[in-house]
Amino acid sequence: MGEPICIKDFEEFAYKTLPRNALDYYRSGAGQQETLANNKRAYSNYRIRPRCLRNVAETDISVTVQGEHVSMPVGISPTAMQRMAHPDGECANAKAAQDMGTIFILSTISTSSIEEVAEAAPRGIKWFQLYIYRDREVTRQLVSRAEHAGFRALVLTVDAPFFGLRLADIRNKFVLPPHLKLANFQGTKSTDINKSKAGSSLNDYVNSLFDQTIEWKDIAWLKSITKLPIILKGILNFEDAIMAADAGVSGIIVSNHGGRQVDTWPASVSQLRHFQG
Amino acid sequence: MGEPICIKDFEEFAYKTLPRNALDYYRSGAGQQETLANNKRAYSNYRIRPRCLRNVAETDISVTVQGEHVSMPVGISPTAMQRMAHPDGECANAKAAQDMGTIFILSTISTSSIEEVAEAAPRGIKWFQLYIYRDREVTRQLVSRAEHAGFRALVLTVDAPFFGLRLADIRNKFVLPPHLKLANFQGTKSTDINKSKAGSSLNDYVNSLFDQTIEWKDIAWLKSITKLPIILKGILNFEDAIMAADAGVSGIIVSNHGGRQVDTWPASVSQLRHFQG
Amino acid sequence: MGEPICIKDFEEFAYKTLPRNALDYYRSGAGQQETLANNKRAYSNYRIRPRCLRNVAETDISVTVQGEHVSMPVGISPTAMQRMAHPDGECANAKAAQDMGTIFILSTISTSSIEEVAEAAPRGIKWFQLYIYRDREVTRQLVSRAEHAGFRALVLTVDAPFFGLRLADIRNKFVLPPHLKLANFQGTKSTDINKSKAGSSLNDYVNSLFDQTIEWKDIAWLKSITKLPIILKGILNFEDAIMAADAGVSGIIVSNHGGRQVDTWPASVSQLRHFQG
Amino acid sequence: MGEPICIKDFEEFAYKTLPRNALDYYRSGAGQQETLANNKRAYSNYRIRPRCLRNVAETDISVTVQGEHVSMPVGISPTAMQRMAHPDGECANAKAAQDMGTIFILSTISTSSIEEVAEAAPRGIKWFQLYIYRDREVTRQLVSRAEHAGFRALVLTVDAPFFGLRLADIRNKFVLPPHLKLANFQGTKSTDINKSKAGSSLNDYVNSLFDQTIEWKDIAWLKSITKLPIILKGILNFEDAIMAADAGVSGIIVSNHGGRQVDTWPASVSQLRHFQG
Repeated sequence: MGEPICIKDFEEFAYKTLPRNALDYYRSGAGQQETLANNKRAYSNYRIRPRCLRNVAETDISVTVQGEHVSMPVGISPTAMQRMAHPDGECANAKAAQDMGTIFILSTISTSSIEEVAEAAPRGIKWFQLYIYRDREVTRQLVSRAEHAGFRALVLTVDAPFFGLRLADIRNKFVLPPHLKLANFQGTKSTDINKSKAGSSLNDYVNSLFDQTIEWKDIAWLKSITKLPIILKGILNFEDAIMAADAGVSGIIVSNHGGRQVDTWPASVSQLRHFQG
Repeated sequence: MGEPICIKDFEEFAYKTLPRNALDYYRSGAGQQETLANNKRAYSNYRIRPRCLRNVAETDISVTVQGEHVSMPVGISPTAMQRMAHPDGECANAKAAQDMGTIFILSTISTSSIEEVAEAAPRGIKWFQLYIYRDREVTRQLVSRAEHAGFRALVLTVDAPFFGLRLADIRNKFVLPPHLKLANFQGTKSTDINKSKAGSSLNDYVNSLFDQTIEWKDIAWLKSITKLPIILKGILNFEDAIMAADAGVSGIIVSNHGGRQVDTWPASVSQLRHFQG
Repeated sequence: MGEPICIKDFEEFAYKTLPRNALDYYRSGAGQQETLANNKRAYSNYRIRPRCLRNVAETDISVTVQGEHVSMPVGISPTAMQRMAHPDGECANAKAAQDMGTIFILSTISTSSIEEVAEAAPRGIKWFQLYIYRDREVTRQLVSRAEHAGFRALVLTVDAPFFGLRLADIRNKFVLPPHLKLANFQGTKSTDINKSKAGSSLNDYVNSLFDQTIEWKDIAWLKSITKLPIILKGILNFEDAIMAADAGVSGIIVSNHGGRQVDTWPASVSQLRHFQG
Repeated sequence: MGEPICIKDFEEFAYKTLPRNALDYYRSGAGQQETLANNKRAYSNYRIRPRCLRNVAETDISVTVQGEHVSMPVGISPTAMQRMAHPDGECANAKAAQDMGTIFILSTISTSSIEEVAEAAPRGIKWFQLYIYRDREVTRQLVSRAEHAGFRALVLTVDAPFFGLRLADIRNKFVLPPHLKLANFQGTKSTDINKSKAGSSLNDYVNSLFDQTIEWKDIAWLKSITKLPIILKGILNFEDAIMAADAGVSGIIVSNHGGRQVDTWPASVSQLRHFQG
């Protein structure tokens, strides 16, 4: 294969290169993966509407997001455990986003720590993705570390009180490879995500440590412990969008978690039509 | 193959394990199997509509069906001759339903008898599926045995005065294997379903013994011989649903018989929209 | 392969058995065969709407067509040169239709003559399909022979002033095999359909002998030379259906000529919706 | 393979015969080629609506286009560098169009010059496709040469200020083969389209020489330097069609550039519905 020149080329390269355990974790949707397939297919329902005879010598696709000037309407969403793909993991992606002038969102369950990422991309626009643990002190410390490290927003994931059933992970009995750790929890018990379980160790981790009781009222608690703007990730309905506004958050990310949570959820992009003025 | 973790895995296991005669009987739809394919495909037209930030630490999907508390809105429909797949046949499925707290419906043309199933799952919610034989005495005795054995409802199949043309069964000249019997008819002539015919022995059996003259008025006769609630299985139109209510039955099962009766019937799940308030 | 038990089995048998020249003639649609494919696919848009609990011990699907009692709403449409498939050709099909109590329509360009077919199936309901030749005397004689042989209707094909471009026939340089003749034209020059041409000899035959000037007013001429009812085959629009009624014909056959004339014509069955009261 | 008898046959022949560099240039659409695929598929949404019993002995599909009598509603659109496919290149196609009585449009970036084509097809209806170079003198000379050579209209391409990303050309690092030149620019620097670049040399050529500032007001300039009618190629919206009329051009060509410019533009033929009275 020559140089990769489009996203499919990178995907094919990954299929040839990554170990099965990591590849399957990255590529899998929930269940029969219908939502994952629909996520891609849904874009084919949209057409770019071309106009002609405009001066296009100078073009500008930058946008303002949460008060930040961003070079393009594309950023890097939080995805977990990126060092399974490359030793530089989240640090490399944060640097790339910094170089491109766009946003990088770090996952709570990353393999590079909040501080490592901040050091790798000090001038980049960095947001921190948050899960709320049953032990609220864990979340409080994550928020505090993100604030101190210069992260500029918190992205609370609201669509994953439990993790989706991704069949390949269950078949592989997914574990985080032994040389990697959940970097934000070094030395704590949460690192038993490296130990083999009956199914996916990640699902086991999530189901045992995340707080499944979280409700709208808990947004107030999160607001009480931080000055950072809060963005909710995983909203798919306008009712929830209105509740989010009422709860005083700064933004939402319309997402079905990459088709990884519940199969037969609607395609993310198809839901945007419900949010138009 | 590893442990089965989804329904497709069980299906694939069956394809590798079962004898052709039995596998084809279980898997075949009528004709060119368009309705069978549509039965599955129709689910892709539905989307789960996710809401977020609800306390989901405790969840409950139990429902009340015919006055019974059932642990989930899924039960085991009547399918014939289950011992072709495993020596425990209907008894095993009845026990599984009992353990899961849901309903098991025993087929008239089962390979375990009414009494065997009752003994295997004494505490389970058991219903008995009924065909009406030309010899009404046969039906009367089946009803009486089901009542005595603790079955709690009768499920009259109304979409099968003749049996569908399932091409694989015709090609296989389907017979019930010699070591198995229609267990509810031990020692009667109805067991010649084991003898090879020009086509499927089951179709021959049905066409010669079932009563093709059954009409709405015959529901009254069935009511006159039992105290059990009567449920009609195989209704696909709201007109028939209204007639069922007028006939005084206790419920209906919207079904196209698994696509096994007439090809080009509509998908079962797609018909539910006609029954909404 | 075992006994054929459905239409697909017969089709597969034909694919294994027939010489390429004949098989391609029978199976081909015009152009890229989209209309041929749509003709089949269009049926999947229709659903049989099942009702239940009706006495079906006695069923009757007979209909009355042009005053004739026909055992089922299915007959045998005219197709040309049937002896390429079997030595008994049109005579066998006419006998089959007679035995089944339904209609057989003999093609003008058949390999069994009007008289042979009449002798083979004397009690059957036989109609004669007509093309109008430039030499009107040819048509006059065909009509006269059909009348004397006991055919009960004339089926004038109105969708084929030229014949469709069927690519396989052009590639094969289709000819009628030398041992066969257009049986209604024995000893006339029209039999040079056996001689190899640049493309399909049949298209050459049609284009050189059929009358491309035929218009609605020519129906009057046809009516003037026969007492038989006239049926127009190849109507696809309700405007043409109304003109047919105004022209005093006895019936129409809604057909796109099996997708063999012009690719991208609509599917025959889909057009029926335009003819409903 | 026998004689080619349909367009697909010619396409297959090209796939077997042409060098990869040339074949890929001719066949590729932009990006993932969805628009290219839709361009073809969109035709399947249209049906020919057949009428019958019309005198079709004499038929005429000629049309009048820009005051010219054209034998059929099909002409030859401008495509670049045709000598990659055959030594006679654009001259052969111009002769074919002349023989068929229809229009030939010569590309600016052709491998036969304006004058060669004029000499090859002196009586044919020839139009000249125009790109506007940053160096307006280049365009002025092209227009002047087309006028003197008897071309009867200018076709200004308005959908290609930049050229589309055609992945195969990028992978091939497309160059014009060394024995060929952009014939309208012999001896000028523009011929460095033969030199290998990081990606497609054509994109490099276009992006460095074409004027990306062109706007509607530049139509006035083009009108000021020619008496020939101006036709805009690449309009897909009725708003742009109205602006074209307001700008005083003589016609438009509704086109998405063969799906070669921006993937997810709508299919060309599907846009025609927006232009109906």
